[in-house]
Amino acid sequence: MMILLRSLPLMVSHSQPSLRIASSFSLKTSYILPRINTSLPRTATRGVSGISRLRIPDESDLPSETRKLIAQHHGDNWVRAFSVNPETARRFVTYYEDLFTNSNAKLPLREREIIAVVTSATNRCGLCTANHTIGLSSAIGGDRVRAKRIAADHHLVELNEREHALADLSERLTVAPRTISAQDLDQLRQVGFEDEEILEAIETISWFNHSNRITIALGIVPDQHYFE
Amino acid sequence: MMILLRSLPLMVSHSQPSLRIASSFSLKTSYILPRINTSLPRTATRGVSGISRLRIPDESDLPSETRKLIAQHHGDNWVRAFSVNPETARRFVTYYEDLFTNSNAKLPLREREIIAVVTSATNRCGLCTANHTIGLSSAIGGDRVRAKRIAADHHLVELNEREHALADLSERLTVAPRTISAQDLDQLRQVGFEDEEILEAIETISWFNHSNRITIALGIVPDQHYFE
Repeated sequence: MMILLRSLPLMVSHSQPSLRIASSFSLKTSYILPRINTSLPRTATRGVSGISRLRIPDESDLPSETRKLIAQHHGDNWVRAFSVNPETARRFVTYYEDLFTNSNAKLPLREREIIAVVTSATNRCGLCTANHTIGLSSAIGGDRVRAKRIAADHHLVELNEREHALADLSERLTVAPRTISAQDLDQLRQVGFEDEEILEAIETISWFNHSNRITIALGIVPDQHYFE
Repeated sequence: MMILLRSLPLMVSHSQPSLRIASSFSLKTSYILPRINTSLPRTATRGVSGISRLRIPDESDLPSETRKLIAQHHGDNWVRAFSVNPETARRFVTYYEDLFTNSNAKLPLREREIIAVVTSATNRCGLCTANHTIGLSSAIGGDRVRAKRIAADHHLVELNEREHALADLSERLTVAPRTISAQDLDQLRQVGFEDEEILEAIETISWFNHSNRITIALGIVPDQHYFE
C-alpha cells in the first residue's frame, strides 16, 4: 500500500533520516522518502545564495520599511531571505513580535519559549530550534544547558506540571492535530491553565508550525552566531 | 517498535480514522491512535458551549475592538471561539486579512484559495475546508461544483500547470515539510512563478497549517451556512 511520491525530490537534506508515514484512509498521504545522497552539490539543498533557496534581493532595491526590518533583526539570514517578498516579511515580523513581546501576553515568556523550542525541534527546523534555544535560555536566567536539554529531549528534563503539559501539547498538536480532544484541554485546566492561556498556547504552537515550514521550505541556513 | 501515546485521548473524533505514523529516528514520534468510540457524549469532542471546547465569553464582557471583529465576521463560530483571548483574535484576523485582501498580493486570489482548500483538506480541518471552498468558488466565478471537487480530491480535477504545482506543494509542505528541496522550488520557477510568488505560496500554505491547528484543537463547530 506504499507508493512513491509523485514529484520525488532527488535528495532531501544531508541529515534527513528515512521516514515513513502510512495511513489507512488515503493512498495519497503515503510517502516513501529516498535515502540520503551526499554526492549532489550543496546548492541542491542550500540554494544559489548560500543563505536561502530563493533569491536574496539587494538591500538597495528594497522599500525603506523592509531595510529597517532587516537592520532591526541584525541582518540575520531569515529576515534577508523573507525580504524577497516585503509583504511576507512585514506580516511575519508584525505577528511574531506581537506574540512574543506583547505586554498583554497570557503565558510567561518562559512557557512561550518552551513551546517554540519543542515545536521547532519536533518539526526539525534547525534554525528555529537554535534561535529559540537562545531565547529560552534568556527567559530562564541564562541557563543555556537547561535550554539545550529541553531542545534535545524535554522528556529527559525535569519540568514543572505546566511546562510538561505544554511540551506534550506542542508535540501532539504538531504531529497529529486531530488527536487533540476536549479531555486534553480539560487536563490543561486541571494543572491551572485558564481558557485564554490555553488558546495562547495553541496559537503559539500553531504559529511555529507556520514559521518552521517557511524556514524549512526556503532552506534558510542558520547564522553562525546561533551556534557560538 | 510502536508505543502507545503517553496521554492517549479517550476518543479522537466521530470521523477520525485509525492513523499510524512510523519513523526510524525516534520512538517518541510513533503513535497508535485508538478506534472510534461513539458511545461517549458529544461534549467529549464538542465542548460545553456546543461551539468550541473553550469558554465562549459574553460579548458584553469583551473589549469594543473584539466585539467589532465579531460583527465584521457575522458572529461566526470561529471568531466567537477566538474571542476568549482578544489578543489572539486581533492578531489572527489582522494577518489573515492582510494575506487575503492585500492589494499587493503576488498570487491571484484563485491560487491563494486553492492553497487554502488543499492545505485545509490535507489537515482535515472540516470548518476551514468548507469556508474556503466557498471562497474558492467566489474566486472562480461562482463555480461551486469545481471548488467542491478540488476540496474532495484535486488530483481528479483538471488544473492548469501553476494550480497543479501549488496543490502538490500544499500537500507536501503540510505533510512532510523536510522533503521540500531546492529542485522543487526550481520546478515552480519552470512553470512561471517568480521568487516572491513562491514565498507567498509557501507563506499561505504555512498560514493554513497555523489556522487549521487552532480550529482543530478548539474543536470549533462549522456554522450551518457553510453547508447550505
